[in-house]
Amino acid sequence: MFSVDLNCDLGESYGLFRIGNDQEVLKHITSANIACGYHAGDHNVMMETVKMAKVFGVKIGAHPGFPDLHGFGRREMKISADEIYNLTIYQIGALVAIAKTCGTKVVHVKPHGALYNMAAKDKEIADAIAGAVADTDPTFILFGLAGSCLVKAGEEKGLQVAHEVFADRTYQPDGSLTPRSETNAIIHDPSLAIKRVVRMVREGRIEAVDGTEIEIKADTICIHGDEPQALDFAVRLNEALKTEGIEVGRGWDSL
Amino acid sequence: MFSVDLNCDLGESYGLFRIGNDQEVLKHITSANIACGYHAGDHNVMMETVKMAKVFGVKIGAHPGFPDLHGFGRREMKISADEIYNLTIYQIGALVAIAKTCGTKVVHVKPHGALYNMAAKDKEIADAIAGAVADTDPTFILFGLAGSCLVKAGEEKGLQVAHEVFADRTYQPDGSLTPRSETNAIIHDPSLAIKRVVRMVREGRIEAVDGTEIEIKADTICIHGDEPQALDFAVRLNEALKTEGIEVGRGWDSL
Amino acid sequence: MFSVDLNCDLGESYGLFRIGNDQEVLKHITSANIACGYHAGDHNVMMETVKMAKVFGVKIGAHPGFPDLHGFGRREMKISADEIYNLTIYQIGALVAIAKTCGTKVVHVKPHGALYNMAAKDKEIADAIAGAVADTDPTFILFGLAGSCLVKAGEEKGLQVAHEVFADRTYQPDGSLTPRSETNAIIHDPSLAIKRVVRMVREGRIEAVDGTEIEIKADTICIHGDEPQALDFAVRLNEALKTEGIEVGRGWDSL
Amino acid sequence: MFSVDLNCDLGESYGLFRIGNDQEVLKHITSANIACGYHAGDHNVMMETVKMAKVFGVKIGAHPGFPDLHGFGRREMKISADEIYNLTIYQIGALVAIAKTCGTKVVHVKPHGALYNMAAKDKEIADAIAGAVADTDPTFILFGLAGSCLVKAGEEKGLQVAHEVFADRTYQPDGSLTPRSETNAIIHDPSLAIKRVVRMVREGRIEAVDGTEIEIKADTICIHGDEPQALDFAVRLNEALKTEGIEVGRGWDSL
Repeated sequence: MFSVDLNCDLGESYGLFRIGNDQEVLKHITSANIACGYHAGDHNVMMETVKMAKVFGVKIGAHPGFPDLHGFGRREMKISADEIYNLTIYQIGALVAIAKTCGTKVVHVKPHGALYNMAAKDKEIADAIAGAVADTDPTFILFGLAGSCLVKAGEEKGLQVAHEVFADRTYQPDGSLTPRSETNAIIHDPSLAIKRVVRMVREGRIEAVDGTEIEIKADTICIHGDEPQALDFAVRLNEALKTEGIEVGRGWDSL
Repeated sequence: MFSVDLNCDLGESYGLFRIGNDQEVLKHITSANIACGYHAGDHNVMMETVKMAKVFGVKIGAHPGFPDLHGFGRREMKISADEIYNLTIYQIGALVAIAKTCGTKVVHVKPHGALYNMAAKDKEIADAIAGAVADTDPTFILFGLAGSCLVKAGEEKGLQVAHEVFADRTYQPDGSLTPRSETNAIIHDPSLAIKRVVRMVREGRIEAVDGTEIEIKADTICIHGDEPQALDFAVRLNEALKTEGIEVGRGWDSL
Repeated sequence: MFSVDLNCDLGESYGLFRIGNDQEVLKHITSANIACGYHAGDHNVMMETVKMAKVFGVKIGAHPGFPDLHGFGRREMKISADEIYNLTIYQIGALVAIAKTCGTKVVHVKPHGALYNMAAKDKEIADAIAGAVADTDPTFILFGLAGSCLVKAGEEKGLQVAHEVFADRTYQPDGSLTPRSETNAIIHDPSLAIKRVVRMVREGRIEAVDGTEIEIKADTICIHGDEPQALDFAVRLNEALKTEGIEVGRGWDSL
Repeated sequence: MFSVDLNCDLGESYGLFRIGNDQEVLKHITSANIACGYHAGDHNVMMETVKMAKVFGVKIGAHPGFPDLHGFGRREMKISADEIYNLTIYQIGALVAIAKTCGTKVVHVKPHGALYNMAAKDKEIADAIAGAVADTDPTFILFGLAGSCLVKAGEEKGLQVAHEVFADRTYQPDGSLTPRSETNAIIHDPSLAIKRVVRMVREGRIEAVDGTEIEIKADTICIHGDEPQALDFAVRLNEALKTEGIEVGRGWDSL
């Protein structure tokens, strides 16, 4: 039976600055990537979010990012691979301890924003992140862009990895995402987006922007949580997957 | 045989801002309290400091503080007990993960600066910290001002505690430190400071500023690391303790 | 003719973290207090907010706060009067330059949150803020709690001051606000709140919680901008003031 | 008569983190670039440094940098030109107000670290900075790498500019600095460095690394302040310039 995980970035509030509708999103996903205080989130928000995810039975992962709250971790920063190794461990560790005091456990790691994008293409950064994850806990599952440098680095370190696909984004012939700056980067039609997801899960293939067919592994789908229509999409996607007989969840999770 | 631990705050540099002479200090102490990135320290400095402490065979502890890099965690902040619980766990967790990747282990926790001082007197804050330590790892040893609220809170949570004394500070009849604002707060004569330490360790007693004798437990002595004379003092203190037949180390450590 | 200013804290967003509905609020107020990057706001938000206020013809003031983004400047911090002097100048200066490049001018200063509350009672802090304002530009108008230490300190420095009142809060017999922790601190009935405002403006008197009549000067009323009902209240208050023949604006502003 | 300015970055301490020996450096320079709280410095340090510079009769400039205290503003960040415009104004404004309360005046602006280097090559960033400087105060002098994009952008905005040269660095045939990663980037022999400076001032020419002669304008020389040998070099350079009959100071400064 086919199965696919739905993941979403959560816990992105900071102090009195509130972002997202975490409680609502948790009803529709099977994995939560929790911000760890560098690009978003703080010790209070992390505690709250871990507790909420536990209530909803959603698996939790660390979502480490660049130390750039102002830029929300979306700005590229020239940071050495050694430092990326260190800051990844720091952020994972903080969440691991918080989860432990809540009687639950961090089970995956997904880097955030610019760190995620850079790790998808840059082997040195990918190795630093994969090394940090493996050294912190070799049972963690590493989430990365499907077919990217990052998932390869994870496999080389002996980690279980999850290939992530995007329902609302188009792909280049090399399997990378079309940059948002391009006009055809985003898929605005929800029905089309769902069809594409189903095909990626079922057949492991997708049509790139130039019409070529590419192979793609879809272990987990990224759901956005910050906009109302995103939530509607999550509901529709859940329904469509069930109708198609695709199990929503981490069927691939060996733990 | 009598024994006493010598502890020092380490890893207080931040980015290019360098503080202290950690490599030198490590030769003279038996416990290192490592800043965790809130009032001082960062992920790189933590990694370096843990590695160095391991080389010198010095036991490491987390040194959580207020989120106030600019004030070095020395300014009182009105932060709720719930938030103190959360920020303590966050900081400990970050160091635990870093230590793990270095093949070593955090074994104690000592709060920093204003957090330490507030926890010495305020039961609610003391309980929050002790709870955070116990919930993160019940085998951690909690360091607090000798006889203070904080060590009592630690004992109530079932934690092993270490009573900390200050060689260069005078005491009030109630066992609290004379505030630095008072003229007689500091002991400037190293010989006198050493004599007082020896007496605290041997007899469990010390003379308060008003001449009364008070009971005091001296499990660990705080060594300052940021000034050259502090280092000379550490050397002299080590020698004096050996001469007096007092073992330097964590003889009381059940682990 | 009676007149009263309506002021609101604006520009409290930070990076991607959005707070408030500034564009809507600007339609209903005559003075905007713009956060300066310490407790909220950033250089981009300040630039946007100044431009928007200019479009709406709303006068702008600096809204300096404690360096505590996480606590939104609402947590008391033990900061010296000298440092408060410095940080007030820094924040005012940043906004002054931004306003200048937009072809407009900062004309008042209102401290934020814990800084405002501490300055209302603590003469040393009040003097530091009033001194900072006067030294930066003696033509600035200083906003402070009606009858408080802060407005007195401003007058002593030769500044024009504006006494601020709160429509939705009750008062103690000494003219201070009833702390929010008390059950009778907030006035929930908008009609009552409006009646009280009208009386404060017209008669310069208000009933304190113990039933005594106190004198109060109402130059400016604080409008909250972060909640939908606050906006409704602003609309009703504007209408009521007009009906009562009270001019909404800075009639007292000598500039 | 030939003249050349000696400038140095000052005020780079932050809270208890102390950097540099500002008091000593001020004896040997004629322009101080004062950090403005983003990559280094804070409101207290800025106030102290402005006062000290005034005592020594050294002209002061704003030294704005990226919002990256941890990386000391030396890491490239992908920040939009619009945001660079805003953050430059913010930082200049903060220093302008502090200088005003000290009875002195900011007279130049020199961007810091990665911002300086990026502005030297990237016209869009250079324009943003030059625009920010001109809009804040058109009488400010803009310091930039000799012959770079930044000084050209300043001239286009009608600003007076100062071409900055480096005594201890080698040059590429296109007038850019040899990257520090290259082995021949640094000139370690102080006598050679001084000879090169004299030639740049007198003849407006220097030998590039490939042996070609390039034209270079030397209005101001960058002195490093953070190392002991740097201070010795400053002393020797001052003496050598006097011996050569070159006036040390801002002879070119029209104000």
